[in-house]
Amino acid sequence: MRRDLRMSDLPKAIEICEKGPREGIQIERAIIPTDRKIALIDALAATGIKRIQTVSFVNPKRVPGWADADDVVRGFTPVEGVQYTALWLNKQGLERALAFRDRLTYSETVSLPASEKFSLRNQNRTTEDNVRVQMNQAQVLAQQGIPLEGALISAAFGCNFEGDIPIEHLLRTTERCFEIAASQGFTLKRLSLNDTMAWATPESVKRVVAAIRERWPELRINLHFHDTRGMGIANAYAGLEMGVDSFDSSVGGLGGCPFAGHSGAAGNICTEDLVFLCDELGIATGIDLEKLIEAARLAEDVVGHALPGSVMRGGSLRRLRASLH
Amino acid sequence: MRRDLRMSDLPKAIEICEKGPREGIQIERAIIPTDRKIALIDALAATGIKRIQTVSFVNPKRVPGWADADDVVRGFTPVEGVQYTALWLNKQGLERALAFRDRLTYSETVSLPASEKFSLRNQNRTTEDNVRVQMNQAQVLAQQGIPLEGALISAAFGCNFEGDIPIEHLLRTTERCFEIAASQGFTLKRLSLNDTMAWATPESVKRVVAAIRERWPELRINLHFHDTRGMGIANAYAGLEMGVDSFDSSVGGLGGCPFAGHSGAAGNICTEDLVFLCDELGIATGIDLEKLIEAARLAEDVVGHALPGSVMRGGSLRRLRASLH
Repeated sequence: MRRDLRMSDLPKAIEICEKGPREGIQIERAIIPTDRKIALIDALAATGIKRIQTVSFVNPKRVPGWADADDVVRGFTPVEGVQYTALWLNKQGLERALAFRDRLTYSETVSLPASEKFSLRNQNRTTEDNVRVQMNQAQVLAQQGIPLEGALISAAFGCNFEGDIPIEHLLRTTERCFEIAASQGFTLKRLSLNDTMAWATPESVKRVVAAIRERWPELRINLHFHDTRGMGIANAYAGLEMGVDSFDSSVGGLGGCPFAGHSGAAGNICTEDLVFLCDELGIATGIDLEKLIEAARLAEDVVGHALPGSVMRGGSLRRLRASLH
Repeated sequence: MRRDLRMSDLPKAIEICEKGPREGIQIERAIIPTDRKIALIDALAATGIKRIQTVSFVNPKRVPGWADADDVVRGFTPVEGVQYTALWLNKQGLERALAFRDRLTYSETVSLPASEKFSLRNQNRTTEDNVRVQMNQAQVLAQQGIPLEGALISAAFGCNFEGDIPIEHLLRTTERCFEIAASQGFTLKRLSLNDTMAWATPESVKRVVAAIRERWPELRINLHFHDTRGMGIANAYAGLEMGVDSFDSSVGGLGGCPFAGHSGAAGNICTEDLVFLCDELGIATGIDLEKLIEAARLAEDVVGHALPGSVMRGGSLRRLRASLH
């Protein structure tokens, strides 16, 4: 099994999208007070993070933790240069999100799962249903003058209900995202590959990134990993080796997927751990790791339990080095 | 910062040395009953693991958890094909270990820290003291007819008291290990690089492995990582990419280093998570992951608290795939 020569091409800088407030808080059992959610978003914005997913505009009966999504968006203090985003799953959610055009950026405007079985379990929709819903939402977004340039594919690396996702299937799903954007005259510029159920491994990350890049060399790839099987940072490193320069992560490792179908599901890779890796590899993130560690401690305080992040406990090496001189 | 082409050369098979019983148990606050330690060793031997570090022959006043080391070695049931090893730090410990020549394998017979400051803090010894102690132990081992073919360098990637370890320094420490073996007429065949205080990153792993291999191409390298900063599995993956085929790990992620000087110090990388990675990458380990997950649950039960392993909670993908067909 000798491998071919392969280009290792670490990027000079990456962009991190912080998903902790949205992704983390929806899975917490306790209802977090609105002002604490706002405090966490504001603390994150002070670290140098340039993109924060703040809330979910979802059915409060289904996700009671986000009944106050509108109040949270109203409440945070926008920092110049920081993009605040939100998640929605249907037209009602989109309409709520569109009420905040002064505060929110609409970044992932087309979204499809790579696994139909996941979609059926998660939202009771077939692939064709999903395409139809996305076409309708695309029309609403385009009417509002919002460019359809970012797509998200969930279950991109595998699915607990469908198994491994063949590359051809993922390419076809990506094509359909392009078709949805094209229906309103747009061309996708960014694609987020979400490993919703933690099936990715470093080698599958490399295979998938290579296949997408071969077909759409201009598309900026974003990677989104969950750490359920402990592979998250290794997967991110594999992405960096492929030159990927955009990642999602979650402060402290907040989160988990309530729809993943098993109780061991973990949150996104931990933002501090990813920033630590980048610091040590000489990859710029624009983020102050010490401030971020403080934000991770705040996140623990907000949710009221320990979070899985490592660097928040182990400490940065920069700080250790500084203490030795 | 474009990188050169680099060979990615995953090994076909790796050997894993399980450190959980020894490394994990010494840091636990509660005293674990002898029969529970033995049960864990026997459960691990049933998974297909071929090498298990069982106990520490250390001063019971310093490490009370290992006062029963002799009883544990007497108590486990040897499985054919499994090598059982032990740790010692001085001549008294070595003599205790040598009483079990019928049950133990003596594998890491030369040992030096790459950091003198770590050694001073840890054992109050200078580098010259360490070389002298190792020379004396080498003589005892050689007199017993035990080959001096395996060396271990602790703090190989960095030190909380000394900072980054220059490659030249590590090469010099390796040379001294060769000199100690040579003093009894032996040539080292194996070298374990231990990241005792979790300073390694995937790129430093690649640099260090490349430097050692360039100088001693025949030396079999073993990597030993602690997960204090969440980089453990990514570091192991970087080692695999360099073709390294020998790793230490700890079931469930048991452990931590009592001498590392801060409370956030974590145990070795988790054996199940490493085996999961190898399974998914098509690298043979000889270990049954499902049995290993059971052993990790036993380890949690033995120590009486949750362990940091991920796959023991997230589950294997093989099992998920099988359930879908």
